[in-house]
Amino acid sequence: MSQHSSNSIQNGWVRTLQLNPPSLDDNTADIDRLIAALKKTLQINHIRVNLALMKDLPGFIRRTDYHLHCVVFKDGPHWQLVNILPGHQPCHATGVAIDLGTSRVALRLVDLLTGTRLGERVFDNPQMSIGSDILTRIHYASNQNDRDYLQQLIIDELNIQIEAMCRRTKRKSTDVYLVTLAGNTTMAHLFLGMDPYFIIREPYIPVTNRPGVQPAVNVGLALHANAQVMVFPNIGSYFGGDLMSGILVSGLNDSFETGILVDVGTNAEVVLGNREWLIACAGAAGPALEGSVSDMGMMAGPGAIDHVHIDHDTGQWHLRTIADQPARGICGSGMIDLAAQLYLAGLLDLRGKFVTKEDPDRFETSEGMNHLIVATAEESATGRPLTISQADIDSLIRSKAAMYTILETITNHVGLGFDDLSIFHVAGTFGAFIDPKAAVTIGMIPDLPLTTYNSLGNSSLEGATRALLSVNAVDTIDRIQQRITYLELNVNQAFMSRFSAAKFIPHTDKTKFPSVSAKNNN
Amino acid sequence: MSQHSSNSIQNGWVRTLQLNPPSLDDNTADIDRLIAALKKTLQINHIRVNLALMKDLPGFIRRTDYHLHCVVFKDGPHWQLVNILPGHQPCHATGVAIDLGTSRVALRLVDLLTGTRLGERVFDNPQMSIGSDILTRIHYASNQNDRDYLQQLIIDELNIQIEAMCRRTKRKSTDVYLVTLAGNTTMAHLFLGMDPYFIIREPYIPVTNRPGVQPAVNVGLALHANAQVMVFPNIGSYFGGDLMSGILVSGLNDSFETGILVDVGTNAEVVLGNREWLIACAGAAGPALEGSVSDMGMMAGPGAIDHVHIDHDTGQWHLRTIADQPARGICGSGMIDLAAQLYLAGLLDLRGKFVTKEDPDRFETSEGMNHLIVATAEESATGRPLTISQADIDSLIRSKAAMYTILETITNHVGLGFDDLSIFHVAGTFGAFIDPKAAVTIGMIPDLPLTTYNSLGNSSLEGATRALLSVNAVDTIDRIQQRITYLELNVNQAFMSRFSAAKFIPHTDKTKFPSVSAKNNN
Repeated sequence: MSQHSSNSIQNGWVRTLQLNPPSLDDNTADIDRLIAALKKTLQINHIRVNLALMKDLPGFIRRTDYHLHCVVFKDGPHWQLVNILPGHQPCHATGVAIDLGTSRVALRLVDLLTGTRLGERVFDNPQMSIGSDILTRIHYASNQNDRDYLQQLIIDELNIQIEAMCRRTKRKSTDVYLVTLAGNTTMAHLFLGMDPYFIIREPYIPVTNRPGVQPAVNVGLALHANAQVMVFPNIGSYFGGDLMSGILVSGLNDSFETGILVDVGTNAEVVLGNREWLIACAGAAGPALEGSVSDMGMMAGPGAIDHVHIDHDTGQWHLRTIADQPARGICGSGMIDLAAQLYLAGLLDLRGKFVTKEDPDRFETSEGMNHLIVATAEESATGRPLTISQADIDSLIRSKAAMYTILETITNHVGLGFDDLSIFHVAGTFGAFIDPKAAVTIGMIPDLPLTTYNSLGNSSLEGATRALLSVNAVDTIDRIQQRITYLELNVNQAFMSRFSAAKFIPHTDKTKFPSVSAKNNN
Repeated sequence: MSQHSSNSIQNGWVRTLQLNPPSLDDNTADIDRLIAALKKTLQINHIRVNLALMKDLPGFIRRTDYHLHCVVFKDGPHWQLVNILPGHQPCHATGVAIDLGTSRVALRLVDLLTGTRLGERVFDNPQMSIGSDILTRIHYASNQNDRDYLQQLIIDELNIQIEAMCRRTKRKSTDVYLVTLAGNTTMAHLFLGMDPYFIIREPYIPVTNRPGVQPAVNVGLALHANAQVMVFPNIGSYFGGDLMSGILVSGLNDSFETGILVDVGTNAEVVLGNREWLIACAGAAGPALEGSVSDMGMMAGPGAIDHVHIDHDTGQWHLRTIADQPARGICGSGMIDLAAQLYLAGLLDLRGKFVTKEDPDRFETSEGMNHLIVATAEESATGRPLTISQADIDSLIRSKAAMYTILETITNHVGLGFDDLSIFHVAGTFGAFIDPKAAVTIGMIPDLPLTTYNSLGNSSLEGATRALLSVNAVDTIDRIQQRITYLELNVNQAFMSRFSAAKFIPHTDKTKFPSVSAKNNN
């Protein structure tokens, strides 16, 4: 973490001003004097100042000799002055970026003046106690008390985590003036206490696609009294602010060349485009890719198998776990790796069925179904073998087929082929772990040169951070939201036949995956 | 009071909308659907919606079949949605206009949908308990506790009065969504809890010239939770929102012909202009015109002498009192009437000195100074004679001379003479009572045809009312504030020689007052 720097960033939300004192020749009112200077600095026509800031202004600006740090923010065309700080003292104006995931929440603390990243924290979304998936939470939120409770869960935890993060960096939570939050549409609704009931009911209507900027106190965040929260906009119920944040970070919207951005989870969200146009769609991919399907499925974390290698010649297995802990389960990226390795080793056929005869010791039958022993009782942390069933693999195959079909559908929709894509961004924490080669092997993503694939890491958090540090970033997010076209995926005959063809490993049409060759079907 | 009408006003702040329900073909988010309809109706590009309104919107708009009354408001270019009400039910959206005077406060309740005026109340400004004049209150407000107390005094009283006014018209105070307030710069500061310290200290700097629109809850008004208060803008420390309101009502800013607007009080505030230009100035006129100078001076109210006639031939006096009560004192307009009549009857010479020999019984000497008996002990309500002293008259003469000098100065400043004025508006409650003929007689206002004079009544309250009923009115107020030029009155040699010439009755230069002729100096 770099030290607090005295250099302030360009184009940020803190502006340092030296006003000329009033005189008989220039008896502009105090706030009008400040507003005029801000308008000039920001090159804008109007900025709102709330009453609390005006009340004690006369004494304040005279005590500070008219030298001020001004924290500003904007909501669309509407600028506001958030706070004024003495210009001669160190400025501790702080921002918090939030990636509000259904399962995990990531926070980042930044210095608004210098742009320094002060700290980061990741924790489970406390709403997991109500239900791990979005549907359960929306059902739970169907009356106002329970909706308020869901909101309280996340807000309380955010207050605790922000407070702790501030303490570690010698800031106070009242130094926090700006919060930016990117999350899926439902998480944004629940954070704001908005009724999510119609999100999952035809015709799938969110309360808003642009929550905009709200006073932090109105959602219960215990920060500076005039702190503001910007919640990233979404495009309908199934394309959330986390994706908008991803687009911002990917730079798709600024690129002359056409690229694609994919966020893989229970839903596969895809955006395709360049600086001229952006088209988005989202479709159900099933839970297999989030590692929450099989008995041994788990989220990425210590003890999760995230990488599998089966030696082509010896048939020997090498498992890698996160943090090198004894294996406790397998995460989504590990599952893709496993399926790819099984296929390449001839333990899985092109229909995704176990080939038990290739290595009978690896298999056992229980409840009338074949199970693959991924880790033996000795290797596992639980003392019991870790196994996945044929059903788990079937589920993964459906998910990967859905993913591929969605990618194919949106690309074909605009008359392009995969070869026309200059870059393939993979967003989200899942994207950070996924091995593109393995994903190509099972036919989840197209067979492009591996250099085409770019992992954006937690682009949701990164985009939220950029919005804290740059006026341009916030303007860009609005422009992206306005420009993007949402393509409603019609699950019609054409889609279904594409989907059927994609349910093979890697695909019924092998010419689409020239780089993939397995032991038994070279 | 006219009955609640079912016709809604044009161009008002309540708009009734019927939205199209969402469908798979039109899955716009709920609030975005509403915003789109509002933008179309209002012909604007952006409108802010606060979180509280969004939270329960989905259920609400479906229960009301997408038929809604929307209360909107704006602050400069910034529109906001204030509340949404069911379109099928009677709409009780209510506004409160406030004329916040230093001494008296007037309220008016209006129906925001129909424009119906529902009720009115006038009461003393409770800050009078701290001090009757502005200076005392600013000194009192020099620390935050006392400033808060002054604010609390007026806010508490407003809450009580608004509540009572609502009850009488079968409204609830939570039906009040909009408040407009016009007052002088100091009253506006104290209402908002803003520090007025520098208003009276060179170079005379208010906190703001444009308080704009603030949430009512932030000043402590107990109305609808999202009610908004618009405080009229001012032009510096000595030309307040009450005058801006007066300009709006006078229509000076829209007139092809040049007119003048005068508000007479301790300060004389004057604005001159037409649809092309507006110039304003303010100057001290002294307290004589507010009736707060002599022992018998009082504000207009029951028992105040407001009209005096002395029969030219018989010398008989006729006093008129407000509400025909026995005389308790004399109000400002009565004082002007009295001085004019004294002058015309030869009881006052052109220097403004009593001519005791003309009617010796009317005079008595006390503390070495001549006193005029205005009402005898038998005529008065107090059982003691009501008298005014030579010093009282001297004070009145100084006040009227100041007034005339200010009028002459501003008119000459733009190269005009009084003859160029097509209309002469007199604002304020004082203006409603003043007899222009008497004011001309003593040389307080120029000797124009009496039809030129137009009393605006309580134009401060009227302007505040218009702002509650029309988007145009609010826009016009902003335009007036931006267009007006404030002329700093230099009390220089030229001003002083004008002032000296005006200290005669009616003036040293009698040709300026051809219509005035008194008994002794025809």
